[in-house]
Amino acid sequence: MSEPLESTLKPGDSYVQSFARGLSVIRAFSAEAPRQTLTEVAKRCGLTRAGARRILLTLETLGYVKADGRLFALTPKILDLGFAYLSSQPLWQFAEPVMQQLAGELKESCSAAVLEGGDIVYVLRVPARKIMSINLGVGSRLPAWCTSMGRVLLAGLPPAELEEQLARVQFHSHTARTARNLDELRTRIAQVRSQGWCLINQELEEGLVSLAAPIVDRNGQTIAALNVGAQVNRTPPEALLEQCLPRLLEAAQSISRLLQIKS
Amino acid sequence: MSEPLESTLKPGDSYVQSFARGLSVIRAFSAEAPRQTLTEVAKRCGLTRAGARRILLTLETLGYVKADGRLFALTPKILDLGFAYLSSQPLWQFAEPVMQQLAGELKESCSAAVLEGGDIVYVLRVPARKIMSINLGVGSRLPAWCTSMGRVLLAGLPPAELEEQLARVQFHSHTARTARNLDELRTRIAQVRSQGWCLINQELEEGLVSLAAPIVDRNGQTIAALNVGAQVNRTPPEALLEQCLPRLLEAAQSISRLLQIKS
Repeated sequence: MSEPLESTLKPGDSYVQSFARGLSVIRAFSAEAPRQTLTEVAKRCGLTRAGARRILLTLETLGYVKADGRLFALTPKILDLGFAYLSSQPLWQFAEPVMQQLAGELKESCSAAVLEGGDIVYVLRVPARKIMSINLGVGSRLPAWCTSMGRVLLAGLPPAELEEQLARVQFHSHTARTARNLDELRTRIAQVRSQGWCLINQELEEGLVSLAAPIVDRNGQTIAALNVGAQVNRTPPEALLEQCLPRLLEAAQSISRLLQIKS
Repeated sequence: MSEPLESTLKPGDSYVQSFARGLSVIRAFSAEAPRQTLTEVAKRCGLTRAGARRILLTLETLGYVKADGRLFALTPKILDLGFAYLSSQPLWQFAEPVMQQLAGELKESCSAAVLEGGDIVYVLRVPARKIMSINLGVGSRLPAWCTSMGRVLLAGLPPAELEEQLARVQFHSHTARTARNLDELRTRIAQVRSQGWCLINQELEEGLVSLAAPIVDRNGQTIAALNVGAQVNRTPPEALLEQCLPRLLEAAQSISRLLQIKS
């Protein structure tokens, strides 16, 4: 394999373009638009009607989309694609029992996420029972810069990659406590790096506090983050630190160890 | 939209083919092959090296694959595709709290699945705490004919569709109790249809018992199945029926009702 891959294809290549369009049609379906007409899909994806028709029919032929009259919807076969990723990550098998135990002991929901672009993507989630749990499923995204797992993942990046990420942050005051500018954000990330965990106190949403710790591979590189989230009225930040931090750090270390042994 | 979609594209069309190949490369990654060389991907997908290279580079350009030296792996961006499906199904939002309560009360894991091809595909799963839970994540598949949710989903099909499904069943004796032929399977499906629920006693795996009930839409059509699974030593079939069946049927009806009101 001596030839460099990069020489064979460019982002403007027609194959790349057409494949990207196909995937964009899949991603056009959501809670807001679970069923769409051809015209709606074309509009949402910036395609011509002919282009959208071709892709929808392709997806229908392949079993990823079904048509009901004029309305198109995704089929569960789509899950095979996400499942290919999840099952190719041995991490989550090791992590799940540890996270179940943690969530059970702490009676708080527990999640794991990885960094993707400027977002964290949830890869595993164990909801707390009997309380209103935070409604975030596997595959959902949140901006990294204002979430506890995101800060842990950002703190684990090499300096150059961190700068790239910071340059792209679009600040938005979710609450009065949200970091407002690069200086504030840098200070908070530096603190996470030095202490080895992150507490976010209502920066993303009023009432939501969360605590995250890194999962590291055998090279000491942060590859994922583990967190527990809670409601501030029930579990104020001090209680979260006192009751949950030691157990969260322990769980993150267990998962890291399992991963380092088995991978 | 007067033109019939079917006239514009055929399965043999080059666009369909190339899109299908791209998706097959995504699906080539798994727990057994999380990281692969170009040659391995080509072999696994039945593609030429040039063809596999083009697709891998496309996926890399689009952020769905990353290369580490000669090895390619999927990125978590892949989850966006599966998430598009899950978030487009309002059912699962309504179902999750009901399933969490059910799993908590019964102390057994609780899942929901839909029919896709001849398989059931898990769309939601609430694992039981503190026991070895059945290791099946969202997006994983099992053959419909020998699972409790599969039998419920098959029992809910119109006769012609059921016949299509039955014609494709490949019988395999997972255990001594597995249905061995079409006659046995038909009898068991008919029983499920008449009683409105399904008990599977170790037909798929020794030691595994499970109980499923249908989730129906406002037209009375079965659109998903709900189940609880247990270990036979801890929960024999009689106990499962006595302790779990009434609560499972109640939960399935609650979800069906929520769905009928809100969709």
